Amino acid sequence: MSNKQMEVEGMHIPKSYTMNGGDGPRSYTKNSSYQRTVIEESKDLINEPIEGNLDIETTCLSGTKIFAIADLGCSVGQNTFVAVQNIIEAIENKYLSKIQNRLSLEFQVLFNDHSSNDFNTLFRSLPPPHKYYAAGVPGSFYHRLFPKSSLHFVHCSYALHWMSRVPEQVLDCKSPAWDKNKVHYMNASEELHKAYSAQFKNDMESFLNARAEELVDGGLMVIVLPNQPNESNLLENARAMIYGIIESCLYEMVKLGSISQENVESFYLPLYFPSSKEFAEFIRKNGKFSIERMGTMTKHMSYLNPSVELVVRTTRAALEGLFKEQFGEEDTDEFFEHFRMKLAETFHLLDSKSREHQELFVTLKHRKH
Amino acid sequence: MSNKQMEVEGMHIPKSYTMNGGDGPRSYTKNSSYQRTVIEESKDLINEPIEGNLDIETTCLSGTKIFAIADLGCSVGQNTFVAVQNIIEAIENKYLSKIQNRLSLEFQVLFNDHSSNDFNTLFRSLPPPHKYYAAGVPGSFYHRLFPKSSLHFVHCSYALHWMSRVPEQVLDCKSPAWDKNKVHYMNASEELHKAYSAQFKNDMESFLNARAEELVDGGLMVIVLPNQPNESNLLENARAMIYGIIESCLYEMVKLGSISQENVESFYLPLYFPSSKEFAEFIRKNGKFSIERMGTMTKHMSYLNPSVELVVRTTRAALEGLFKEQFGEEDTDEFFEHFRMKLAETFHLLDSKSREHQELFVTLKHRKH
Repeated sequence: MSNKQMEVEGMHIPKSYTMNGGDGPRSYTKNSSYQRTVIEESKDLINEPIEGNLDIETTCLSGTKIFAIADLGCSVGQNTFVAVQNIIEAIENKYLSKIQNRLSLEFQVLFNDHSSNDFNTLFRSLPPPHKYYAAGVPGSFYHRLFPKSSLHFVHCSYALHWMSRVPEQVLDCKSPAWDKNKVHYMNASEELHKAYSAQFKNDMESFLNARAEELVDGGLMVIVLPNQPNESNLLENARAMIYGIIESCLYEMVKLGSISQENVESFYLPLYFPSSKEFAEFIRKNGKFSIERMGTMTKHMSYLNPSVELVVRTTRAALEGLFKEQFGEEDTDEFFEHFRMKLAETFHLLDSKSREHQELFVTLKHRKH
Repeated sequence: MSNKQMEVEGMHIPKSYTMNGGDGPRSYTKNSSYQRTVIEESKDLINEPIEGNLDIETTCLSGTKIFAIADLGCSVGQNTFVAVQNIIEAIENKYLSKIQNRLSLEFQVLFNDHSSNDFNTLFRSLPPPHKYYAAGVPGSFYHRLFPKSSLHFVHCSYALHWMSRVPEQVLDCKSPAWDKNKVHYMNASEELHKAYSAQFKNDMESFLNARAEELVDGGLMVIVLPNQPNESNLLENARAMIYGIIESCLYEMVKLGSISQENVESFYLPLYFPSSKEFAEFIRKNGKFSIERMGTMTKHMSYLNPSVELVVRTTRAALEGLFKEQFGEEDTDEFFEHFRMKLAETFHLLDSKSREHQELFVTLKHRKH
């Protein structure tokens, strides 16, 4: 097993499954406009379950006067604040009159990400007037993060596709999942895909079990993650194309002698994009949540008018940490130069259809014990 | 008013009322061994109120199964973790058998400091196995930080002597409190002392009111802060001597042309050291807490065997941020060179008696509504 894995909270988690910190030109803060559109689009989708499914009388008002919201995988930048604001507004819109008559409900927002996340930047960029008590909670959301029955609403956008680790088998040269020239299951063997899928399933089970402990009965959870359309050929999408470019750039750098073959062989992106069918299956099997709503969103891609520069910057803000850890600072710079050039050559192939990213949007309700 | 003041959370708070971050040679992490001894010494003093005064049955077990502890002004380094561990052990020792029979109590620890505190270092240095859910809460403790009745135990060690701001009058050349060559009320006019005392009183009132909202009925608060012995002459102690050295170093730098007279005139240390009599009076006047215990500790100073180097490093870890903000990086370096030299010249005057720091230790209980 690669020594890039480190022991964190009892699990093997590479150090840098976090987005680029700070607010410089390569930061996630400055390179997450795509994720921002997803949050903006999901505003109505958040309103709906609060309007229809959230029974604030039993989930909250009976006991405490606190309504606790957790944003899991919050990263840095304004996106997490916008998401949280949307949730609070939806709750206020529904309950304002009732609440005013009875008591003053207080919101607590718990911003979670790995302890390597840049919480300093996050805290310093908190919007100056905000009507909630803010806290940062460091740790992997594949573990327990909060006390029992202490949350009323969980939001997790663009985070759950980061698995807890690269599946062990794909790093083992004796395993049928071994496919040394790949960095991801897309474009790769069925065995590699299966190993990723199994890892994601395990992670989902850990995730759902932890949240089931933390959410009050009837509490809601909204999950948004990049979707793999059920019927699509894995090869026919922009994501697969980008991973293919990453692979060929790394191959080129090995040929040029910049990096070693062994280093590339142990490098994988711990990202999984479940189909909605697969995702629903995992939730049903777990049994602790009912699916209140599940759908996909596709329209927002038009906002962005993607360019080579944008794809490079977005990719770098999200993946740079992984590259630096495996290849070091200098080779990472070189890699992104290769990546920029190769992407420019093939960018015309990303026709409008294959550029259409799809998001999976799921609303879950914690079943009563 | 000096433009070094900035608007944070609706109050004027200089940006750097936080200890030096990171874990380098000048960090608070590496230069807080004195504060560590205070925490070690206060272990028994924490045990006692938990043993005698904490009614966990009514404060906690009746409602939730969460026991929430806040450490206010936690800074960085191991001290906060040691303090929290002491509190948890004391509670477990008292209630373990009862709790095991009935339910599993979960601890939540909320580490609070200004949003400019180095939370990244704090989170990354969390002890690997810890039996609590950790969260960081950014903001000034002179405001509300937590939802109503959400805390069971508050700990605040070596933090409350940092006032929310420099009193306005001392920055106003028309005020009788104006004393341009001073950086602190010690060694200064009675008017300057009064202005500081009034500011501290206001801050205490804000602090106690906020905590009264946040603590459950019967919840405990343990405060440790540097003490000014009631009967002592302000001039006859090490602290006054050190502030005197700071003043003379700044005066020297003005004469050398390194810094401007105006810059020194608007520079004050926002630190106040109440006598136990004064502190008790503020608490009684506020009326929301009963004083369960109040005392002083003096013996721990012998642990340290202070040297010029230690005093320079400790002073720098705590005050460097204030200096940098007022004078800039370079002049701060120069200042600490002057400080080191002048301290070395006069160090022999710090005889064993005047080196004896005293800590004020107070246990408060939130009165039932």
